[in-house]
Amino acid sequence: MLDKVLKVGLLFDFYGALLTEKQQQCLEMHYLHDLSLSEIASEFNVSRQAVHDILKRAEQILIEYEARLKLVERYQQEQQSIQEAYDLVGALPAELRNIPEIQSVRQKLATLIDKSEEV
Amino acid sequence: MLDKVLKVGLLFDFYGALLTEKQQQCLEMHYLHDLSLSEIASEFNVSRQAVHDILKRAEQILIEYEARLKLVERYQQEQQSIQEAYDLVGALPAELRNIPEIQSVRQKLATLIDKSEEV
Repeated sequence: MLDKVLKVGLLFDFYGALLTEKQQQCLEMHYLHDLSLSEIASEFNVSRQAVHDILKRAEQILIEYEARLKLVERYQQEQQSIQEAYDLVGALPAELRNIPEIQSVRQKLATLIDKSEEV
Repeated sequence: MLDKVLKVGLLFDFYGALLTEKQQQCLEMHYLHDLSLSEIASEFNVSRQAVHDILKRAEQILIEYEARLKLVERYQQEQQSIQEAYDLVGALPAELRNIPEIQSVRQKLATLIDKSEEV
């Protein structure tokens, strides 16, 4: 389930703006604010099944965009390379790691990695 | 003009897969292979005006996707941070820059920057 939340969250972060307002709201309520389908249904005054269908459809749309554009995949590959660069700096002997210029490189890379964790 | 070619090229690289086959072909012929509108027109056996309209429409669609998703903007900001990290490593004194582990960091970052130049 956590995997699914992360996956939908990342897809939503990239392509969410292409969904309808209602689809965006349902995804946010369910995946970001952790509301159950029944809770969302009562919020919108529709059936639980209707919420289920909206979520399924929205997820499907996000998956289809990624299948065509592969921008999340590209982003994740880039993140992996940044992480590798970060790890290389982190693995330097302490006397090198403590040099201010090298600390700056590390901090800069950390900022780039942190972005993905905000998702 | 070069700016426009780069801008359309980058947008096309990100969102091109959302265009029709014909739109993609026209953009590639014009911006990648540098064919004139007349040359593309004779290739497809349509009027020069028709090619002009296809290109305008395709560019407009790409611009609209970016206005909603801002993924090119995000990518460019990330590229700038990677470039800054790369420059920080490059500005290290030679005795540090020549340490193999630091060379590896620099190479890893160079790979990430090169990607944008392939576009």
